Amino acid sequence: MGAKVAIVMGSQSDWPTMQCASGVLEELGVEVDVRIVSAHRTPDRMNAFAKGAADEGITVIIAGAGGAAHLPGMIAAMTHLPVLGVPVQSKALSGMDSLLSIVQMPAGVPTGTLAIGEAGATNAGLLAASILATNDEALTDRLKAWRAARSEAVAERPVD
Amino acid sequence: MGAKVAIVMGSQSDWPTMQCASGVLEELGVEVDVRIVSAHRTPDRMNAFAKGAADEGITVIIAGAGGAAHLPGMIAAMTHLPVLGVPVQSKALSGMDSLLSIVQMPAGVPTGTLAIGEAGATNAGLLAASILATNDEALTDRLKAWRAARSEAVAERPVD
Amino acid sequence: MGAKVAIVMGSQSDWPTMQCASGVLEELGVEVDVRIVSAHRTPDRMNAFAKGAADEGITVIIAGAGGAAHLPGMIAAMTHLPVLGVPVQSKALSGMDSLLSIVQMPAGVPTGTLAIGEAGATNAGLLAASILATNDEALTDRLKAWRAARSEAVAERPVD
Amino acid sequence: MGAKVAIVMGSQSDWPTMQCASGVLEELGVEVDVRIVSAHRTPDRMNAFAKGAADEGITVIIAGAGGAAHLPGMIAAMTHLPVLGVPVQSKALSGMDSLLSIVQMPAGVPTGTLAIGEAGATNAGLLAASILATNDEALTDRLKAWRAARSEAVAERPVD
Amino acid sequence: MGAKVAIVMGSQSDWPTMQCASGVLEELGVEVDVRIVSAHRTPDRMNAFAKGAADEGITVIIAGAGGAAHLPGMIAAMTHLPVLGVPVQSKALSGMDSLLSIVQMPAGVPTGTLAIGEAGATNAGLLAASILATNDEALTDRLKAWRAARSEAVAERPVD
Amino acid sequence: MGAKVAIVMGSQSDWPTMQCASGVLEELGVEVDVRIVSAHRTPDRMNAFAKGAADEGITVIIAGAGGAAHLPGMIAAMTHLPVLGVPVQSKALSGMDSLLSIVQMPAGVPTGTLAIGEAGATNAGLLAASILATNDEALTDRLKAWRAARSEAVAERPVD
Amino acid sequence: MGAKVAIVMGSQSDWPTMQCASGVLEELGVEVDVRIVSAHRTPDRMNAFAKGAADEGITVIIAGAGGAAHLPGMIAAMTHLPVLGVPVQSKALSGMDSLLSIVQMPAGVPTGTLAIGEAGATNAGLLAASILATNDEALTDRLKAWRAARSEAVAERPVD
Amino acid sequence: MGAKVAIVMGSQSDWPTMQCASGVLEELGVEVDVRIVSAHRTPDRMNAFAKGAADEGITVIIAGAGGAAHLPGMIAAMTHLPVLGVPVQSKALSGMDSLLSIVQMPAGVPTGTLAIGEAGATNAGLLAASILATNDEALTDRLKAWRAARSEAVAERPVD
Repeated sequence: MGAKVAIVMGSQSDWPTMQCASGVLEELGVEVDVRIVSAHRTPDRMNAFAKGAADEGITVIIAGAGGAAHLPGMIAAMTHLPVLGVPVQSKALSGMDSLLSIVQMPAGVPTGTLAIGEAGATNAGLLAASILATNDEALTDRLKAWRAARSEAVAERPVD
Repeated sequence: MGAKVAIVMGSQSDWPTMQCASGVLEELGVEVDVRIVSAHRTPDRMNAFAKGAADEGITVIIAGAGGAAHLPGMIAAMTHLPVLGVPVQSKALSGMDSLLSIVQMPAGVPTGTLAIGEAGATNAGLLAASILATNDEALTDRLKAWRAARSEAVAERPVD
Repeated sequence: MGAKVAIVMGSQSDWPTMQCASGVLEELGVEVDVRIVSAHRTPDRMNAFAKGAADEGITVIIAGAGGAAHLPGMIAAMTHLPVLGVPVQSKALSGMDSLLSIVQMPAGVPTGTLAIGEAGATNAGLLAASILATNDEALTDRLKAWRAARSEAVAERPVD
Repeated sequence: MGAKVAIVMGSQSDWPTMQCASGVLEELGVEVDVRIVSAHRTPDRMNAFAKGAADEGITVIIAGAGGAAHLPGMIAAMTHLPVLGVPVQSKALSGMDSLLSIVQMPAGVPTGTLAIGEAGATNAGLLAASILATNDEALTDRLKAWRAARSEAVAERPVD
Repeated sequence: MGAKVAIVMGSQSDWPTMQCASGVLEELGVEVDVRIVSAHRTPDRMNAFAKGAADEGITVIIAGAGGAAHLPGMIAAMTHLPVLGVPVQSKALSGMDSLLSIVQMPAGVPTGTLAIGEAGATNAGLLAASILATNDEALTDRLKAWRAARSEAVAERPVD
Repeated sequence: MGAKVAIVMGSQSDWPTMQCASGVLEELGVEVDVRIVSAHRTPDRMNAFAKGAADEGITVIIAGAGGAAHLPGMIAAMTHLPVLGVPVQSKALSGMDSLLSIVQMPAGVPTGTLAIGEAGATNAGLLAASILATNDEALTDRLKAWRAARSEAVAERPVD
Repeated sequence: MGAKVAIVMGSQSDWPTMQCASGVLEELGVEVDVRIVSAHRTPDRMNAFAKGAADEGITVIIAGAGGAAHLPGMIAAMTHLPVLGVPVQSKALSGMDSLLSIVQMPAGVPTGTLAIGEAGATNAGLLAASILATNDEALTDRLKAWRAARSEAVAERPVD
Repeated sequence: MGAKVAIVMGSQSDWPTMQCASGVLEELGVEVDVRIVSAHRTPDRMNAFAKGAADEGITVIIAGAGGAAHLPGMIAAMTHLPVLGVPVQSKALSGMDSLLSIVQMPAGVPTGTLAIGEAGATNAGLLAASILATNDEALTDRLKAWRAARSEAVAERPVD
């Protein structure tokens, strides 16, 4: 069976951020397929990926990019699959450009956008898992357990 | 059978925005359940809704709110279901406060955030449909048709 | 007798900021109760804390959080006690997200918001003390003395 | 006995905003004293007001101003009473200037800041009431009732 | 001979802005070809346009879009022709989202970005003309005359 | 004869910035008087300074402060002398709060505001000198020479 | 005798803002010379104006412009006279672009910047008057009287 | 034959950014002429450069500056040649001031603006090359090859 969640990013420099997405999906036992797909440098690769993703057995796509971040929105333009966007923190504007480039999509082509940076990448993984879990009871149980474990790990009081 | 997509909002004043979500879901033949759930004025209602949503047969939750918009994130804290957030345009800051309050969630509790205002509400509906469609071929076909119709409706040239 | 001022924060990582609040309250001889209460990871703990605070003998609540900072506003939704919010400086957006998430509350549920970061935490402590001092002459005197000492410590001229 | 809550503002043009504060305090049966005190045009009046407020029997001060809004912070510099700040929505920058001028106070001189505009003014009134209520059981009851009534007024579903 | 400057935009709603570009090019006697090409609704049309533009005899491309404005950057990814971007003023964020989505391109794929809104569209036309003029003396003369006429039209003193 | 330009700042921590103002004034042979005057911690000192400055022989006042920077505007409220404001770079918001707190003064009470940080402090010194020079030919000559020397120091080409 | 204060602006459209500067100067009995000088459309006129201003008997220059507002800074680059800048409110970005373009000058070339829009224009007039008043006792008296009258006009309480 | 692309910058400190422009142009075999031209410190040099550029054989001008960045727009005011602007990252505001000062030009005087910082400088070089390539087939081929090489260099998958 093909991969369930594809994680794509615009360049190697996005990987330290995006591996938070693959990490949490692996913890949850979700199959991932990680690729570099640049909207600007490899538009044909992006087009082929986006149009073929459903047929490859991909169910959810996570796309991360920074600056004028067109990858999530352009993929969403070419597939009916759910697309989640991660704004990678940019150098000059700290990811505010990435965020607005990803989240402010016009009506008709949605990208479910997460927070800027690593927290957003982790959450993209979790949201992808929750989407898959809508049709997978075992994954639902693992997701609930993951969440419960994190809640239980919250200490009652801070330590110096 | 219970509702598939719940659309909740913080107040009546959010409805002109949020009905874009229910409108597109109805076009796509998806069952919706629309409610007012205020994080700040009815926290108990919110807690009961969020914790009970899965058992009510809800599969995806769309939550819209403006200003210090806590509704999407707080619901996401209390359910493993996918939660999508719509930043309602606010009076003073045009929805920038709504957007940051919804999208900048810490690692562990995701909200898939859409654009500020009506475009975002429409897209929340579409993204919810695409999530349901991961397990519903007929809906997938309707979603593809909806998208194709919109693409075909794009004129070749602008008119004065 | 129970504690007078509760200082709660979303995670251990907020403690370096929030200890400025506890520090100044201890200088002023005000009893404090410091806890980790995460809106997103421990919503039930938050609900129990907020609803029970008055009965625990707490008079003022200081809540600090960063990013999509929902803790102060959600506590304020569940108690009639005065709630003060401290926006913790966030990584990507330097606390602008924290600030807007805390201060832009809708009419009906106030959070008295202080500055981003350590200055805000110190001031949350001072404002809490001034609230308690409305009914405590000895604390009023200590607060006046604290303020006077700081004013007297201002040098006439800068030194290289 | 003197007034309990003073509401001061920089100019007549702030009154449409600030009357939300006096309105809610009057609903709650709290005595208010409303004045125009301009930091920039009447600094001596401001100084006299701030230094004399405690002796006038004032317990909490609400100050509203717009643009380079110095009134709340300057009053806070000259009284140990709790000072709450309301950022009035400004013409060019929609109150972002007002907000930052009020909330970003240095350590040592707190202003509890509310939201930009009318929501913030209403909430300043409510927060002032909650401060007075820390020592007034009857007011506590009225405040709880006011909050409960608002919660009960939230409809279950939006109407077109 | 084919058109020299293509003006493309994401939707009919961008036309009131973008006709400032075609207007000034027509004043300067430059042939224009105006089309609707939506990155998100008609990605295939966009790809075909961008890849075929040079062979169609187009020399410069002006692309206008609003919100998460991907059109200029995506076209630039698929052609070596000069691409100029016009950020259309958006509803919620006044075009700041459009601007950042267009201008913050990564190294390797440039879009020459003009001001938000009508001024930017006019200037895109002028910059396109100045590019064509690098190899067209007659156009250079017309451009110089257009500029001189505007300079001469500046009154010495304002009138009430 | 008394000092000509007073340089005041809110705290010792502003000195590394503000010494750029005193440095350039000393280069230009202008007498300076440097003091710490905190709007928030020493309001009485500020009031006395502002009201007495003209009688002390001060001709221009430079005031630097950060965050909710009230010093320049409050001094301007209490003197008819020209007041120049320097927004000191703040920790969380990089001086945007300082800038807006200083520059956005209401009609009636001006502060001539310079750039954030050291460039602004240097320029406050230069602007103060240019003000004094309106009535001092020798200073005019020194100012012209200072400017000419800087212009001459600009190299023709950058060096690696 | 030549004019004392020159008020220049980039275009006729700036006049409704800038006449607040001329209005207050006329109230104070200061001679003004009002001109349109566009940095971008009439650079030669600007250069001639800036270089000749001192010899024309001008003592202070007020320059207003919007958007990428280069007029104040470029004039300041070519004269040793004090230059005050007024950021005219722009359409898309409400004058934030105007403000940053004027105030963020590099070390060496100061522009004393006032608030965005009409308040800033009025204050530019007042600051220019205060500069002239450093060497004009009669103007000092008129300026003090103008200020005193405004202070006296502040009502004690707001009216509905 | 004279240089084809002039690269000018406001100061030596802009060179680490701007050499990305000269670097890519040299890779592409385009003749460059690099100079320091400060709008504020050397306005006469700027005027002479801008007015004489066409006669010097320059075809495209790249101008980089930071803060209140007036260089690109002022050069564009004095030449009909295409002018490209590079916003250099500034200390306090990370180049947002540079960007707005360059891009928000009024109708009539365009500057084609690239991204903040090094990416923008590289892209200014590429855009200048694409402009020259509109009339140079050999350069077109080199530009296409440069682009193709970069696309081919994109790895399929990220590496740890």
